[in-house]
Amino acid sequence: MSRREPQQYLKIAQHLSEEIRQGRLAAGDFLPSEAELCQHFQSSRGPVRQAMAMLRSEGKISSGRGRRSVVLGDVYSETFEEIYSFSARLRIAGLQGKQKILWLARRPAPPAAARALQLRGDVPVVYVHRIRDWGQNQYLQQEHYFPLRVGRHILRYGETDGSMHSMLQAAGVRFDSARREFHITPAGPREAKNLQVAEGTPLWVTRLALFDHGGDPVEYRISTQRADQVTILASSVRGNNSPLQVAFLAE
Amino acid sequence: MSRREPQQYLKIAQHLSEEIRQGRLAAGDFLPSEAELCQHFQSSRGPVRQAMAMLRSEGKISSGRGRRSVVLGDVYSETFEEIYSFSARLRIAGLQGKQKILWLARRPAPPAAARALQLRGDVPVVYVHRIRDWGQNQYLQQEHYFPLRVGRHILRYGETDGSMHSMLQAAGVRFDSARREFHITPAGPREAKNLQVAEGTPLWVTRLALFDHGGDPVEYRISTQRADQVTILASSVRGNNSPLQVAFLAE
Repeated sequence: MSRREPQQYLKIAQHLSEEIRQGRLAAGDFLPSEAELCQHFQSSRGPVRQAMAMLRSEGKISSGRGRRSVVLGDVYSETFEEIYSFSARLRIAGLQGKQKILWLARRPAPPAAARALQLRGDVPVVYVHRIRDWGQNQYLQQEHYFPLRVGRHILRYGETDGSMHSMLQAAGVRFDSARREFHITPAGPREAKNLQVAEGTPLWVTRLALFDHGGDPVEYRISTQRADQVTILASSVRGNNSPLQVAFLAE
Repeated sequence: MSRREPQQYLKIAQHLSEEIRQGRLAAGDFLPSEAELCQHFQSSRGPVRQAMAMLRSEGKISSGRGRRSVVLGDVYSETFEEIYSFSARLRIAGLQGKQKILWLARRPAPPAAARALQLRGDVPVVYVHRIRDWGQNQYLQQEHYFPLRVGRHILRYGETDGSMHSMLQAAGVRFDSARREFHITPAGPREAKNLQVAEGTPLWVTRLALFDHGGDPVEYRISTQRADQVTILASSVRGNNSPLQVAFLAE
C-alpha cells in the first residue's frame, strides 16, 4: 500500500473545508458534482468520495444519496489533539494558561483507573493531579493516571515544562484513539476548594481513556469543572452514524 | 452517477461492524489488509477505504497511516434517526413510552426559535409541548417549534398517534442533518413541576436544530431532563475530526 495515496482524500477534504470556511462555498450552495471534483483534483472517484464522507461526518455538507450535496456551513470540529491535550485546546483558542500541580505520585491504581488501564488493582500507576487556570474565573481540575511504562517519562514534569502530552510524545508515547464519558455531579469538599465553588455546585465531569495504535490504554483521566461553563455542540448528517451515545434510558 | 455503486462501502462497513459486534473481530485483532478486504468483497480500493473511514469515525478501528488497523471494540453509535426521533430511541432501547401533550399551538415564534428556523420574529410557528415518560421515574420535556409548512402536518396529532416524526415523514418532510447543543441549567418552577424535581435541580438541556437536504430548517427543539440521569459517551480516532465541539474557553 502506497504511503502517499491515502493522503489525497485529506488534501481534497482540506481544500473544500477551507472553501467553506472562507465562504466561497456558502451554506445552501451545491457542492460541485463528483465528476467535477474528480476533474478539478485530478483524482479518481475513491478519494473524492472519501473526502465527501469526511465533510459529511463533520456536519459540513448534506447527505449524498444520488443527489448533489449541499453545503451546510462552517461547523467547527475539534481535532484529535484537542481531545487529549488541554494545552493544545488553549493554544488553538489563543489563550494563555497557568497550572498548579498538586500531586505527582507513584501510587496504587484506584478501581476505576485500574479498570480503564486494564491493570490489576495492586499495580502502581503514575498519578498527576493539577488545576488549570486560564483567567476569566475558570478552573479545570485534571487527574491523570498513567501505566508505569508511560508515566515514567513525566516523573520530573514541572509546572513550567509546557505540555505534559508533548513531553510524552517526545518520549515516543502515541495517542491514537479516545473514549470520553461526560456526566454531571455535585461538588464535594475537595472539588469545591479546587474549583472555588460552593459545595453542591453542579460539576461537569469528563472521563477520558486514551489508547495507542494497538488499542492498549496509555492514560485514564478525570477532568472536572463548573457545569455552567460548559456547552457541547454536535453536528450530524444522515447516513453517518455519530460517534456519540446519549445514555439515559437504562439507568 | 450510479445509484447502486455508493452503497458498496456501506455493505462492507456493515459487514465488518457485525463481525466486531459478534466478537469474531475482537478488540486488539488486526483488521484484514486493504488487499484482503478488496478480494473478500470483490471491491476496488475506494469503497474499502471509505468503509474503513466510516468504522474509524465511529471509533471501532484504529487509525491507518500505512499500518494495519487494529480493532478497538464494539462501540455503540447512535443512528441519525435516534437523534431526531425520541420514539426511535425508545424502540431501539426496547422501552415502552407514554406521552402527555400539554400544548399544541399555532403561536408567534420566540426569539431563539425564530433565529434557529430563520424566520422573522412575528411569523407564526407550530409549537408542541409534551412530557415523555418511560417508567423508572424518568421524564423528558420536549418543546418543538416547526415552520408552518412543516407543522401543518401535525395539527391533528394526538397522544396515541405514535411517532410525530413518522407522521411528518409520511407527509414528505425529510430530516437530513442536525445540530445539537447541550448545556446545564437549574430547574425553574415550570420544569420542576413537569419533571417532578425540586426547583434548582440541575437539568440537562438539549437544543436541537433539524434541517432538510437543502439545509433549510425544519424543526427547532428544546429537550429538558434531570442532569443526573444523562451520560454522553464519545469515541474518537486520530485523523478523524470529531463532529463535537466542547465549548468552555471563551465564555
